[in-house]
Amino acid sequence: MPPISEFIYHRRVQFPETDASGIVHFTNFFKYVEEAEHALWRAAGRSIAAHTADIGWPRVAASFEFKKALRFEDEFDVHIKVAEKTRKTIRYSAQLKKDGEVHATGSLTIICVRRSPGEPPRARDIPPDIDALFEVAKTV
Amino acid sequence: MPPISEFIYHRRVQFPETDASGIVHFTNFFKYVEEAEHALWRAAGRSIAAHTADIGWPRVAASFEFKKALRFEDEFDVHIKVAEKTRKTIRYSAQLKKDGEVHATGSLTIICVRRSPGEPPRARDIPPDIDALFEVAKTV
Amino acid sequence: MPPISEFIYHRRVQFPETDASGIVHFTNFFKYVEEAEHALWRAAGRSIAAHTADIGWPRVAASFEFKKALRFEDEFDVHIKVAEKTRKTIRYSAQLKKDGEVHATGSLTIICVRRSPGEPPRARDIPPDIDALFEVAKTV
Amino acid sequence: MPPISEFIYHRRVQFPETDASGIVHFTNFFKYVEEAEHALWRAAGRSIAAHTADIGWPRVAASFEFKKALRFEDEFDVHIKVAEKTRKTIRYSAQLKKDGEVHATGSLTIICVRRSPGEPPRARDIPPDIDALFEVAKTV
Repeated sequence: MPPISEFIYHRRVQFPETDASGIVHFTNFFKYVEEAEHALWRAAGRSIAAHTADIGWPRVAASFEFKKALRFEDEFDVHIKVAEKTRKTIRYSAQLKKDGEVHATGSLTIICVRRSPGEPPRARDIPPDIDALFEVAKTV
Repeated sequence: MPPISEFIYHRRVQFPETDASGIVHFTNFFKYVEEAEHALWRAAGRSIAAHTADIGWPRVAASFEFKKALRFEDEFDVHIKVAEKTRKTIRYSAQLKKDGEVHATGSLTIICVRRSPGEPPRARDIPPDIDALFEVAKTV
Repeated sequence: MPPISEFIYHRRVQFPETDASGIVHFTNFFKYVEEAEHALWRAAGRSIAAHTADIGWPRVAASFEFKKALRFEDEFDVHIKVAEKTRKTIRYSAQLKKDGEVHATGSLTIICVRRSPGEPPRARDIPPDIDALFEVAKTV
Repeated sequence: MPPISEFIYHRRVQFPETDASGIVHFTNFFKYVEEAEHALWRAAGRSIAAHTADIGWPRVAASFEFKKALRFEDEFDVHIKVAEKTRKTIRYSAQLKKDGEVHATGSLTIICVRRSPGEPPRARDIPPDIDALFEVAKTV
């Protein structure tokens, strides 16, 4: 399988994701982009949780700019792309679109860590077999 | 410390707990009662997660009847009581009150399980030191 | 369109739905059954939020019994059925199944209310056009 | 009352805020900073929802950098500061600290909008009485 650079994740807004102002609470946009990330990994043939026992992927940075609101039962797409790779980190960029219009743009950076029982997680190089799954998108 | 039977947990409604109908989404009442349970355990001198490695407390049943809504920034109390104990389970009853009025009543049953790596959790007797922390409330 | 009695809603467990014990937090089962309810309404040709301005559907009771855990990325089905109807309420029963096995069974009761600005919601009869959408399932 | 520039909001990690990797799911850091914002407004004598009918405060940007994890029952503080004000927007900076150590730093920008039934929200100047409540912190 050739490396993967992007994925389009389709989603519908669920009711508990809305708040009393009538729109989707902004924190859910971060959930949406993480769902898209996990779908991207599955599309690459791998669960991000496959090595949970010894390798983890904590998030080191996350950001969003919100342009238009989403509402209950809205259907939208998260366009997620691999925007940058270093030896230890992956950064994704994401656009949330509804009916072709951009509602929000975001960024999510994860780091590869080694997990040992009783020790704090330590940054480590991304294993080669995982590194080979993803390549940086031509346009971000 | 004598065994404990009940606890009053004070809380304020946070914004993401509301939904587009303008009130607290019903699933949060279950979160509130679990928060009250964990506060009850701390009041008994113990974290419910103290033995996470080998003992766990999955929920086997949960129910609520909703009488009045809660809204953003409402302050309320969860009155949680130990309603029933068996060798392996604890059942709590709970009332959510605001300004002395009952907004909801619920019930939550937990079971003690043994955890071994690579095996499904298995029901086990509540350890005597934990059993001694709680006694069934006189009135429920 | 003939009235509808049940719906099977397919879903995958998302990461924030899990908790530190490694399984889906029990409150999400209530979210899953509500998602299934809204899919049932859409299958009946209607959004449950269509009349939000003047009619609402608060939840008056909800319960679950949990038999087996769900984990990250598990795929499962919510089998939701219309279990009971009165003039003002609808009660659903629900089974969560994974690989044909029942993981949880629940119940959710909603009531039809009239909304007027500045007044508390008041129970009212289910409008005939909505009543005609649903009929009680033969087996529950 | 003199204008307010910052607030320290104390909080304990609740169980559903953790995920299967054993730590607080990153999206909750955004909830924590918003809770701190609402506490800052209450400390200034005002609910952010006071004018919900005609004025709203949607979020236009949010970001976090995560340095150390939080775990179930951890107690921590959110140090929120008014970092920048324009005619229509307020930007907060936030530090999450536990035992004096910084676990995460974030930023949240909100915009003042006018709400009219049936129209999309429109950016408007912050009303003078609200503008007078907050002043930019000397150090951010």
